[in-house]
Amino acid sequence: MTTELIEIGTVPEAWTRTDLLDLESLTAEEITLILDTAEMFREATDGCTRRLSVLSGRTVANLFFENSTRTRTSFALAARRLGADTVDFSSSGSSLSKGETFIDTAKNIEAMGVDAVVVRHRTPGTPYLLAQNLQCSVLNAGDGPHEHPTQGLLDILTIRQQRKEIAGLTVALVGDIAHSRTARSNIWGLKKLGAHVIVCGPSTLVSRAWEELGVEVAYNLDEILPRCDVLNLLRIQFERQAMRPFPSVREYAHLYAMNGQRMAKAKDSILIMAPGPINRGVEVTPEVADGPHSVILHQVSNGLAVRMAVLWLLLGAAHRGEY
Amino acid sequence: MTTELIEIGTVPEAWTRTDLLDLESLTAEEITLILDTAEMFREATDGCTRRLSVLSGRTVANLFFENSTRTRTSFALAARRLGADTVDFSSSGSSLSKGETFIDTAKNIEAMGVDAVVVRHRTPGTPYLLAQNLQCSVLNAGDGPHEHPTQGLLDILTIRQQRKEIAGLTVALVGDIAHSRTARSNIWGLKKLGAHVIVCGPSTLVSRAWEELGVEVAYNLDEILPRCDVLNLLRIQFERQAMRPFPSVREYAHLYAMNGQRMAKAKDSILIMAPGPINRGVEVTPEVADGPHSVILHQVSNGLAVRMAVLWLLLGAAHRGEY
Amino acid sequence: MTTELIEIGTVPEAWTRTDLLDLESLTAEEITLILDTAEMFREATDGCTRRLSVLSGRTVANLFFENSTRTRTSFALAARRLGADTVDFSSSGSSLSKGETFIDTAKNIEAMGVDAVVVRHRTPGTPYLLAQNLQCSVLNAGDGPHEHPTQGLLDILTIRQQRKEIAGLTVALVGDIAHSRTARSNIWGLKKLGAHVIVCGPSTLVSRAWEELGVEVAYNLDEILPRCDVLNLLRIQFERQAMRPFPSVREYAHLYAMNGQRMAKAKDSILIMAPGPINRGVEVTPEVADGPHSVILHQVSNGLAVRMAVLWLLLGAAHRGEY
Repeated sequence: MTTELIEIGTVPEAWTRTDLLDLESLTAEEITLILDTAEMFREATDGCTRRLSVLSGRTVANLFFENSTRTRTSFALAARRLGADTVDFSSSGSSLSKGETFIDTAKNIEAMGVDAVVVRHRTPGTPYLLAQNLQCSVLNAGDGPHEHPTQGLLDILTIRQQRKEIAGLTVALVGDIAHSRTARSNIWGLKKLGAHVIVCGPSTLVSRAWEELGVEVAYNLDEILPRCDVLNLLRIQFERQAMRPFPSVREYAHLYAMNGQRMAKAKDSILIMAPGPINRGVEVTPEVADGPHSVILHQVSNGLAVRMAVLWLLLGAAHRGEY
Repeated sequence: MTTELIEIGTVPEAWTRTDLLDLESLTAEEITLILDTAEMFREATDGCTRRLSVLSGRTVANLFFENSTRTRTSFALAARRLGADTVDFSSSGSSLSKGETFIDTAKNIEAMGVDAVVVRHRTPGTPYLLAQNLQCSVLNAGDGPHEHPTQGLLDILTIRQQRKEIAGLTVALVGDIAHSRTARSNIWGLKKLGAHVIVCGPSTLVSRAWEELGVEVAYNLDEILPRCDVLNLLRIQFERQAMRPFPSVREYAHLYAMNGQRMAKAKDSILIMAPGPINRGVEVTPEVADGPHSVILHQVSNGLAVRMAVLWLLLGAAHRGEY
Repeated sequence: MTTELIEIGTVPEAWTRTDLLDLESLTAEEITLILDTAEMFREATDGCTRRLSVLSGRTVANLFFENSTRTRTSFALAARRLGADTVDFSSSGSSLSKGETFIDTAKNIEAMGVDAVVVRHRTPGTPYLLAQNLQCSVLNAGDGPHEHPTQGLLDILTIRQQRKEIAGLTVALVGDIAHSRTARSNIWGLKKLGAHVIVCGPSTLVSRAWEELGVEVAYNLDEILPRCDVLNLLRIQFERQAMRPFPSVREYAHLYAMNGQRMAKAKDSILIMAPGPINRGVEVTPEVADGPHSVILHQVSNGLAVRMAVLWLLLGAAHRGEY
């Protein structure tokens, strides 16, 4: 049960980015390179040789100003599986409560020898502000309703594994589009790779303005369902909503929940995805969430692989020539 | 000061379990194998070569829904001392607050590539529920008042180290038996290895029904004391008791605290144990807790060795043939 | 990107301490040895070989009873960069809430195989109490307003890097001297190495009694400023003050904040330091904090090197001859 050294090689010259702030600014080629790298890490870390040392001596800091055990842990595991050390800075207990500015906190963390900062913040644009002020790599782990690029990437990787090709697929994002950074990152990534994207939900959560991003806007799930290759069921984020955007949870589930009845009207090959944590009975019923079309837990596993890929690419580009 | 690779060998074929849920279902042979393995790890990790790599590449997750820095840390240190990576999921900050079910949370953690989940929960049976739903190994770190198998094992290991043999010993568990998972795990383990077990405490905390488990029930510590080889002084768990089961702490201490006066009436070779954290002056006085008969801190050290043994056995059986 | 084994050698025979409780009891030679060792680690861990294994198999526990993400993380990173394992015990969630004494908690942590305890506590003298009761190494990470030796060391290291020699320099500590353990540790360390130290601030925060430590006491920053080689701007610790020791923050800033106007009256070579977290606009203006004379972020980086040096020296002396 020993750790063998896998031949990972060096980061391709084509990759030059040292920050991952969004999918909007990435090219299709860059997205594809991340997905291919994630596949490589999935294979390299399967079985008994699951810990690599390609980032040995590097330190990755989690800087989460919003609660998220899951994403935080996924990034930490990804970093350590590459041999890096990790440190965790939560919002509570930080020096912010002692009157320090956000940038000063981040610069202090960087000065401790940190090579990459993974940041989650409720304010859109925070990762850009950090990237401008820090020399180390910055990874956006969710900035308010703006973007959550690694979630977009892991969703797209999951689709690609099942369908081989993204181009030509019809992917519907269903639910709370207005508050969803996952929706935005999925839209940018899927469009760049040639998918047709539909956003679908109650009109209080899905605006016509989304058409400007080149996506189809729909309010009736049953109408679009027969055309869909993939459904990505976004969580109703009760905690983000000052007022309920629909009369009742039951009403929402009646109109938008994926259940057995709706599955019967879908393509035989339909993929059911959900970024989680899922509200069973709200956006998806247990029979569908646990059914044969569901790839929900594949998404979680792919999250690890995608984050390994991104960390390796960013730090490889940042320290190219040093080794 | 380098880490040498100790020859640990492979998990014995006789060991086939991949979960540790209780001591009730273990055989005497299985318990003995765990204790022997723990002794081996104590020796292997003494001195300068205290970090092994037998679980390198494996990940162990702590999933504690009740506060316990101590047990949580002991499991984490044990895992890392075997070369495994560890992740920590506390109840606060988890996705449970976002409406996710307990099983979904656990499946998500598993999907991140976790090989073993160490769970503590106030509801008896939770570890069984997890074991049915997860493919990875599940370790019970305490399920309400039901069982706490590694605590039972470390207590028994501590006795065996001092007395060589468990069979024939008289061991009294004193105090808050009703709320004690430690009592239950000790009873199952000690009985299987041939000890005579007495449970002793106020009638509000010790029911006659315990006789059904084959133990002696006593209400007067002074009467049984001269017969005892070992006293395990259970903590009065003030935080678990809706109403006080005795008139006053002073009254309890008067009847059940081990103090110098009582020590004078005990066997010369008596062992004083306490699972801790101890309330000095309640179940044990400082002179006894810090005296020559006390093996309280040995218990803590043995906790580490027992948890290393259990993790190694369970994961070895789970991945037999993979390496 | 592999980890090479750096030849660090063994801890010099001249170093015999196994605890670091204060700078008051250290000799000038011992302080110099720590600073030299810190410089060695800075070089050894620069670039690609930033993780050593000199403390492999050792475990360092953080035992912080006061909030401090920064210092806690700096110690943890330092320990792991030397190859040690780390564990974290915070005050909340600890067994103290279950009625255990402080010493029992610490002895339990030690019994888990911990080699060094890093302690922060609001009560002066706590680290001494621990050192008397534990066999493992104890490091003071701040005991109330008493001392914070690694902060003193990192401040002095930062000055030495810039000025080569401490002897003969005039160093002013400005601000909240009364509540500052950083001030005390700086004073002891700087005096031993031959610096002239001035403490300067409002009379409510700076008592004449400081003269007994052999330092100059001043109340007017503008008067002493032209003589100073270094200014260490202590944070106004609003959270420690029951009553405001000055009429208003604006008044304080008017009299003591380092700003561009004051910089014009200072020596060309003046160093601006601040232990952080800084209150911008209170003790220092942004133009000065981010200006060319500021070494504030150097202090943070040196914190890591100093803590590596101290951990290596203490554990090397504690386990001399074992390897």
